[in-house]
Amino acid sequence: MTSMDAAVLHGVNDLRVESVPAPDRPGPDDVLIAIRTVGLCGSDVHYWHEGRIGPYVVTNPIILGHECAGEVVEVGEQVRHLRAGDRVAIEPGVPCRHCRYCVTGRYNLCREMRFFATPPIDGALAQLVAHPADLSFKLPDSMTYEEGAMLEPLSVGIYACRRAGVQPGKSVLILGVGPVGLLCLLAAQAAGATQIFAIDVKDDRLTTAVELGATGAFRADDSGVHDALRAVTNGEGPDIVLECSGAPPAVRQSVDLVRPGGTVVWVGMGPESFEFPTLTIGIKELEVKGLFRYAHTWPTAIDLIASGRIDVKPLVTHRFPLIEVVQAFELTRTGAEGTIKAVVTLPA
Amino acid sequence: MTSMDAAVLHGVNDLRVESVPAPDRPGPDDVLIAIRTVGLCGSDVHYWHEGRIGPYVVTNPIILGHECAGEVVEVGEQVRHLRAGDRVAIEPGVPCRHCRYCVTGRYNLCREMRFFATPPIDGALAQLVAHPADLSFKLPDSMTYEEGAMLEPLSVGIYACRRAGVQPGKSVLILGVGPVGLLCLLAAQAAGATQIFAIDVKDDRLTTAVELGATGAFRADDSGVHDALRAVTNGEGPDIVLECSGAPPAVRQSVDLVRPGGTVVWVGMGPESFEFPTLTIGIKELEVKGLFRYAHTWPTAIDLIASGRIDVKPLVTHRFPLIEVVQAFELTRTGAEGTIKAVVTLPA
Amino acid sequence: MTSMDAAVLHGVNDLRVESVPAPDRPGPDDVLIAIRTVGLCGSDVHYWHEGRIGPYVVTNPIILGHECAGEVVEVGEQVRHLRAGDRVAIEPGVPCRHCRYCVTGRYNLCREMRFFATPPIDGALAQLVAHPADLSFKLPDSMTYEEGAMLEPLSVGIYACRRAGVQPGKSVLILGVGPVGLLCLLAAQAAGATQIFAIDVKDDRLTTAVELGATGAFRADDSGVHDALRAVTNGEGPDIVLECSGAPPAVRQSVDLVRPGGTVVWVGMGPESFEFPTLTIGIKELEVKGLFRYAHTWPTAIDLIASGRIDVKPLVTHRFPLIEVVQAFELTRTGAEGTIKAVVTLPA
Amino acid sequence: MTSMDAAVLHGVNDLRVESVPAPDRPGPDDVLIAIRTVGLCGSDVHYWHEGRIGPYVVTNPIILGHECAGEVVEVGEQVRHLRAGDRVAIEPGVPCRHCRYCVTGRYNLCREMRFFATPPIDGALAQLVAHPADLSFKLPDSMTYEEGAMLEPLSVGIYACRRAGVQPGKSVLILGVGPVGLLCLLAAQAAGATQIFAIDVKDDRLTTAVELGATGAFRADDSGVHDALRAVTNGEGPDIVLECSGAPPAVRQSVDLVRPGGTVVWVGMGPESFEFPTLTIGIKELEVKGLFRYAHTWPTAIDLIASGRIDVKPLVTHRFPLIEVVQAFELTRTGAEGTIKAVVTLPA
Repeated sequence: MTSMDAAVLHGVNDLRVESVPAPDRPGPDDVLIAIRTVGLCGSDVHYWHEGRIGPYVVTNPIILGHECAGEVVEVGEQVRHLRAGDRVAIEPGVPCRHCRYCVTGRYNLCREMRFFATPPIDGALAQLVAHPADLSFKLPDSMTYEEGAMLEPLSVGIYACRRAGVQPGKSVLILGVGPVGLLCLLAAQAAGATQIFAIDVKDDRLTTAVELGATGAFRADDSGVHDALRAVTNGEGPDIVLECSGAPPAVRQSVDLVRPGGTVVWVGMGPESFEFPTLTIGIKELEVKGLFRYAHTWPTAIDLIASGRIDVKPLVTHRFPLIEVVQAFELTRTGAEGTIKAVVTLPA
Repeated sequence: MTSMDAAVLHGVNDLRVESVPAPDRPGPDDVLIAIRTVGLCGSDVHYWHEGRIGPYVVTNPIILGHECAGEVVEVGEQVRHLRAGDRVAIEPGVPCRHCRYCVTGRYNLCREMRFFATPPIDGALAQLVAHPADLSFKLPDSMTYEEGAMLEPLSVGIYACRRAGVQPGKSVLILGVGPVGLLCLLAAQAAGATQIFAIDVKDDRLTTAVELGATGAFRADDSGVHDALRAVTNGEGPDIVLECSGAPPAVRQSVDLVRPGGTVVWVGMGPESFEFPTLTIGIKELEVKGLFRYAHTWPTAIDLIASGRIDVKPLVTHRFPLIEVVQAFELTRTGAEGTIKAVVTLPA
Repeated sequence: MTSMDAAVLHGVNDLRVESVPAPDRPGPDDVLIAIRTVGLCGSDVHYWHEGRIGPYVVTNPIILGHECAGEVVEVGEQVRHLRAGDRVAIEPGVPCRHCRYCVTGRYNLCREMRFFATPPIDGALAQLVAHPADLSFKLPDSMTYEEGAMLEPLSVGIYACRRAGVQPGKSVLILGVGPVGLLCLLAAQAAGATQIFAIDVKDDRLTTAVELGATGAFRADDSGVHDALRAVTNGEGPDIVLECSGAPPAVRQSVDLVRPGGTVVWVGMGPESFEFPTLTIGIKELEVKGLFRYAHTWPTAIDLIASGRIDVKPLVTHRFPLIEVVQAFELTRTGAEGTIKAVVTLPA
Repeated sequence: MTSMDAAVLHGVNDLRVESVPAPDRPGPDDVLIAIRTVGLCGSDVHYWHEGRIGPYVVTNPIILGHECAGEVVEVGEQVRHLRAGDRVAIEPGVPCRHCRYCVTGRYNLCREMRFFATPPIDGALAQLVAHPADLSFKLPDSMTYEEGAMLEPLSVGIYACRRAGVQPGKSVLILGVGPVGLLCLLAAQAAGATQIFAIDVKDDRLTTAVELGATGAFRADDSGVHDALRAVTNGEGPDIVLECSGAPPAVRQSVDLVRPGGTVVWVGMGPESFEFPTLTIGIKELEVKGLFRYAHTWPTAIDLIASGRIDVKPLVTHRFPLIEVVQAFELTRTGAEGTIKAVVTLPA
């Protein structure tokens, strides 16, 4: 095959399904993967609608998509643990493997990282992708390609809970229960949190959060949330807050609502700079941790789904063929009621 | 009430139910508790059958029992969070609250600890006990006194998993699946472990372990266990081993079976000294952690049971009235097939 | 003695040396201490000049001062490790010893904390103070009362370095090298940091920082500091930033200058809220930790000084008798060139 | 150059200086280094005298030596940070960079590790060595080749202190103060330990330990050591024990002498298995950590020496030219009084 179909972003609001050159044969440590499912993420939509995310600007046509799973069609000569026909999920960032961050286990901070659908690196909304074999994780027979594609956003939830130190007995508050917030909720449950609270601006999302196991749900504009949370946490507030919205009022709430001595992880990315109550971090002796993507999460994510501890299937609410990718982006952008995660499917 | 019934150990194999003086009115920070359920533990049986555990020798009559729950009948004048009629579980050790260990959060290492049924401190196999209110934990309505009594051994499991760093994605091997091993298994599950292996000398215990969720079970005399474990852990061995038997062969196995760089927690207590492969700890760069009782576990234990994450009810297999306490001890000592935990019940 | 001299704040700018009732005989676990040296701190000056610090308002006359050392003149009946004539340094906060924070070792977050010179608790600028014996630390013969009084601000430096994880091989940047910043510098040196950079708005402070061992010093308005720091840290920035000024530009700099994946501790307290680049914390995956006073530091502080690892003597630049306490406050407020720490001395 | 001189072990006690083929031109990421100084280590002597260490058996001729520094004579085409003429210290183990251990920062546990002078990998007692550039660390002008060679054993000390959590305020006991124990002592000092105790069987070593800063020294056969240590550590024992001898009595002492709740690191390697008081680890709730070589230590080691925090020069007591390498081995084996570290020097 020398050409393939792909969803290529040419400029703001200009996403086209078109024929592009297919990848060459895989290098010695790589595999060639026929993509089957690609989930859409806020960052994909952001590139589509704005043409950039912070310093990353779309200047040349780029294939979008980075939450993906597919079928191995060819393996490089050094690859031992995979073969053609294997079903795999893809970790979409390829680090340099040699810098200080890579050798100390924090490869997500590698400055040479080549990450799907981050300019100028092409993504996964394409029929074929060549990828390092050790970043392609074999799916158990019990898992679907859709579950495989969900491993990427679930990785954010797992990594957030790890950084936060979620464990049995910790109470957790999640600010913003869109797809990432809900996956944080599922990951927190799997890590043993018994009290998990959700705050959002949308009622349907709160309803979903409760259906998935949140033990309390509050609207973001509820002026009584501070007192209500204290009432169920011995007067102190939750041990851990995972801020998943990036919205400045929620970021401010994250440090106001957590208990003294607690931990806050900022999962969502919002504006560069805004009015923020820095003094609260000192007086309450908080730990605030940023989070940039994830590291070392795919095997854990697979284990949690395969063992039944986490069920991501209810989160996939809409499916589109590649040819309707623009409709999928539009739905993800508007977030019509009931939308959690839309995926694009490519037939075998 | 000026006298009460209690199970008093007078010497080796001389356990009598007899009338003893009841506690006085509670001090200002204490509560008086009518005991309802007391679980029996290997250490109770050890005192009964041997008259001592290491340096602790039974020289005067002592009331046994330390896994307990009951009903508050009177509260001290400073007590605010409890009142008569409340159902509580008891944390059975009272630390000094002032030494280096107490003020740094490791009160289980306090040298002035007064612990139920550890000579010369009386235990809980009695109609009434006076106890500090802050070590008496209110049970939710949904929990029974039996579940309340099980919080003590469950605390060992929770504390072992905390010390071991059990979290989603970690594989855990439990050596010895008696009551404490099974509670470690349940605690490891609640903390997100998806691979949990059990090894024991008894088939019925292994069957129970699998029923409670172990993903693999092996007889201790199975010469293939080393290879079998590697086959399901990428050729490396489990990340974490919780040794719950104290038996020298199992203690040796704990470091042989764990993966390089892994963590071993010695939960069981066995002989003082024996032939041990110290070099393995160095070559595999292991961490071996001892464990002495627990600290800060009751609220977590209550949350895990009340939320349904852990179900301890299947572990209570036998119940005896106080008058039959010797039969309960005998059953616990012999561990007849199907015995996990025997409890003594005292009527309201 | 039924009355004593003390420095009492009656209102804004109204600090008077006057006769007040002396403390009663010490309680069973307390000691009575004749104060010999009291260091002045920014918070003392703030109460004097503003009448409040955040929620703490001076509504009744209050004795100021909390950095102190003195001689034991009487001990309570339960006190064993001290006796009259012992020279002691005082940890000036008395926690409740029973709340969640106290029992888990984070007593500095105790909500019932009674802290010297924090309304309505009296401080140490007085001839006599009664204090818990276990918060009164015996000074080695080699240490002076001035060194004893310096243990309080040194405790902030030690605690900041602990929270930051300073250890051999870490590079540390200190923003603001007033007394607390300089003590952070000395504590970072003692913990093994070999690269320690200082930034300040005042040249004389930078000179002092270099004299005390800073390996690089920069003016806060130096536009080249970002590049200069990267040039000496492999292009990355320091591993750790200790922000000791509380000034918004410095707080913003703290996250801009630290390396990706680094740790920032906010030691200084500034305005409640201001424009802050929150996104930087996420993109660089930082940890930002607040700090509220200190915990478990006095024995370490004594060891470091007694062993010669830290020399605090050069930091005490001015001495005043109690009768001149207002001049001492005025000097501390204006911070005339060459002023680091002014102390008030009370004769034996 | 197509041949070079090297010290080749042909069998037990058969070490010969002879001509062997020199390395080829360096690969793209490698450098070619003219060796200038090689320190001798117990493991070198063990191979020489016994022909094996555990599973590593000398079956073919092998060049010994792994503590080394030299001058770069040629660099591979991809190498940017080094050039011919640079003086470098060598980290002597080359990991696979791809396995689970390598990517999580624990490369010292890599099973594919190629380590100098560990059969079948040749070591550094040779005129030339080809080595990965990123494992060759440029020495500051102020450091000598001898100091460069000492970075390897110093790395063990630094890594031991890291694993033990040595920091200001911790008391440290070192069992066995041969070269590695002394370097642990220096590393513990640099990390802020103020109380450092030494125990050894040889008086001259204890004298050296005190000269280098030990605050207490005891003979291993001193029956009063237990009480003496408690007398200077508030009745508890040291916080941390670094066992550097591998001798069974010292390994047993390591857990007996540490305080309850303390940390023990086993640095020395001794017999595979022996009688050991396992119960002590449980009752005192200890952490016992093995240690296998080191990871991520060279930059820290260079910083500590270059900044003057650690002075390793007094430890190099004897120097031999390559032609006298057997005498150097013999001296290291017998450990004549006053011998700490012997090095082999190769002229420029």
